[in-house]
Amino acid sequence: MSGSASDQPAGARVAVVLGTGLIGTSVGLALGGAGWTVHLADPDVRALSQAAELGAGSLDEPDADVVDVVVVCAPPDATPAAVAGALERFPRAAVTDVASLKASIVDALAGHVARDRFVGGHPLAGRETSGPGGARSDLFEGRSWVLTPMGVEDAEALAAVRSAVGEIGAFIVEMKPREHDEAVAVVSHVPQVMASLTAARLVDLEATSLALAGQGLRDVTRIAASDPWLWSQIIGGNADAVVEILDEVADDLADLRRALTGEQALRSQSVRDLVTRGNAGRSRIPGKHGAAAQRYAFVAVVIPDEPGGLARLFDVVGTLGVNIEDLALEHSPGQPVGLATLAVQPAAAPGLMDDLSAAGWVVHR
Amino acid sequence: MSGSASDQPAGARVAVVLGTGLIGTSVGLALGGAGWTVHLADPDVRALSQAAELGAGSLDEPDADVVDVVVVCAPPDATPAAVAGALERFPRAAVTDVASLKASIVDALAGHVARDRFVGGHPLAGRETSGPGGARSDLFEGRSWVLTPMGVEDAEALAAVRSAVGEIGAFIVEMKPREHDEAVAVVSHVPQVMASLTAARLVDLEATSLALAGQGLRDVTRIAASDPWLWSQIIGGNADAVVEILDEVADDLADLRRALTGEQALRSQSVRDLVTRGNAGRSRIPGKHGAAAQRYAFVAVVIPDEPGGLARLFDVVGTLGVNIEDLALEHSPGQPVGLATLAVQPAAAPGLMDDLSAAGWVVHR
Repeated sequence: MSGSASDQPAGARVAVVLGTGLIGTSVGLALGGAGWTVHLADPDVRALSQAAELGAGSLDEPDADVVDVVVVCAPPDATPAAVAGALERFPRAAVTDVASLKASIVDALAGHVARDRFVGGHPLAGRETSGPGGARSDLFEGRSWVLTPMGVEDAEALAAVRSAVGEIGAFIVEMKPREHDEAVAVVSHVPQVMASLTAARLVDLEATSLALAGQGLRDVTRIAASDPWLWSQIIGGNADAVVEILDEVADDLADLRRALTGEQALRSQSVRDLVTRGNAGRSRIPGKHGAAAQRYAFVAVVIPDEPGGLARLFDVVGTLGVNIEDLALEHSPGQPVGLATLAVQPAAAPGLMDDLSAAGWVVHR
Repeated sequence: MSGSASDQPAGARVAVVLGTGLIGTSVGLALGGAGWTVHLADPDVRALSQAAELGAGSLDEPDADVVDVVVVCAPPDATPAAVAGALERFPRAAVTDVASLKASIVDALAGHVARDRFVGGHPLAGRETSGPGGARSDLFEGRSWVLTPMGVEDAEALAAVRSAVGEIGAFIVEMKPREHDEAVAVVSHVPQVMASLTAARLVDLEATSLALAGQGLRDVTRIAASDPWLWSQIIGGNADAVVEILDEVADDLADLRRALTGEQALRSQSVRDLVTRGNAGRSRIPGKHGAAAQRYAFVAVVIPDEPGGLARLFDVVGTLGVNIEDLALEHSPGQPVGLATLAVQPAAAPGLMDDLSAAGWVVHR
């Protein structure tokens, strides 16, 4: 449960945000919007003044004794020292951070005398840009935000951090630091490696062959367009957990390769086994709202490639009261039309197809 | 260039479709719609009569001398014999097939006396279902259809096949059979393996860890939900080409693994190199209409999770005259809102963001 305002003193709660890049400035904007008094600090005076101009908080020195929560939004390398400094400077405050790897930071603070006021955190805030200019008060709305309490925290400190994160609009997921790092290795870091490995095969491919690329290749390699520098930091810093998963991948790959050079029956069996295991893994990814993944029905509709084409389609679908659960767009080379594949609840599909057809749309089953 | 009706005799052209599953029945419907006279045949009498009832063609025995094109839509194993039989039975006809691998079929027919009337084909028709019941006259509209002429074909036969495929509504891509099989290994079969390998890691993962799954994991593993039996046939039949690419993947993976157990600088460099190569490969995937992939600007908009939410968004976007090039939907567990990330032309993004904000939408940068 995320905390509520009733856990807090009657006056405005006070937060300090240390580090006013994209994340810190967004945290300041969000907490300010939720009624907190926010103080900002950053060694980069330019970033600091820009964040203040954007309304993320004040440049006034806070009264150390009234600070409820300190959010350290420093680079990962600088985070342990900044957390330790905050614990010392603000004697009542709960302190949290936002670094994308957690075990090394929690380990670094394990011996600190005020360790029970620290709760590690990691907002999964999507697209990485940088600097206060890209900040948004709603950056975390509807996003997951991991907290990594160790069971040794002061109850009031933990409640204060949960309250702040909840009011920022994020969905709190609690786990152990190492569990977090291992989880992001599997659900984020290794998928990045796999997408990059797949896309690297295309570097020297004939253009004619590339013309056969379908939606499958586009999906698998979408995140292969990610920032190399950013990922070198993330994966380089989580190498042990990533290597463990990559070794499992390499074992499966070696098994498959061996089978594919054998008898036809062995080849088929090996591919069938791997794809079956992939089915099982894929089906475990939570669908909307943490529910188990659902089987949707897919309705493919031909859309003219012009402004408003999709809008007209969605207008009709909306009028019919059907909710679109997911959507993929696909274009064939050389053709002035595209296909929109709508994922809808299975029960809604037949009527939707009939109604769209009746309205003049070309619908594929 | 796809041929036109002027290449053909003045009367209705005549096609025979051998095999009335999903593909064959769809071919019959499409050719019939384009004015061809279509005759159907299938050893499965039930499928055959269903296809005829659906209007895919007639059950009458055709006059062998007037048949222009025979489309063999048999299972891959049965295709070479069916093509050979068609070449013998229809002395004037061009014969083509639809099997998803081409080299083995073309090799099997290399010694046939009427080989110059055969042109191999492979429609990239997306979602695999089966049986005539799923057939659509527009199944191939806007899709790529590979033809694999060897340069030994009779000009009239080649023109007839091109004409038929063009009138079916598909976009013709011509390449050598082995080039086709190698291309689909890279752009389709290996991506399937990579998606399955990634998803297989999730089978034993804690549910809490799965809650951190983001759009990246969902994209990479989308096709991991594919049919194991179907893929065991496809990849098992193209094992040599697939193994060649998998060996490149394994080499890259081994290099990365070695680097990740080394010094921090080596780790980062190795990840940076791989992700950079992935960037280069990803950017070569053709965008719309065969043009080089474009850099789009991304605009993330918070949408209420209710029928019509997306429709209202697209209505506004359409009114603004902005074309949506791609779209991804994302939901966080436990939150009743979603994020729609719209890919638009970079020049259109700032105005779109302003206009959407002005209309009351929550827009993320």
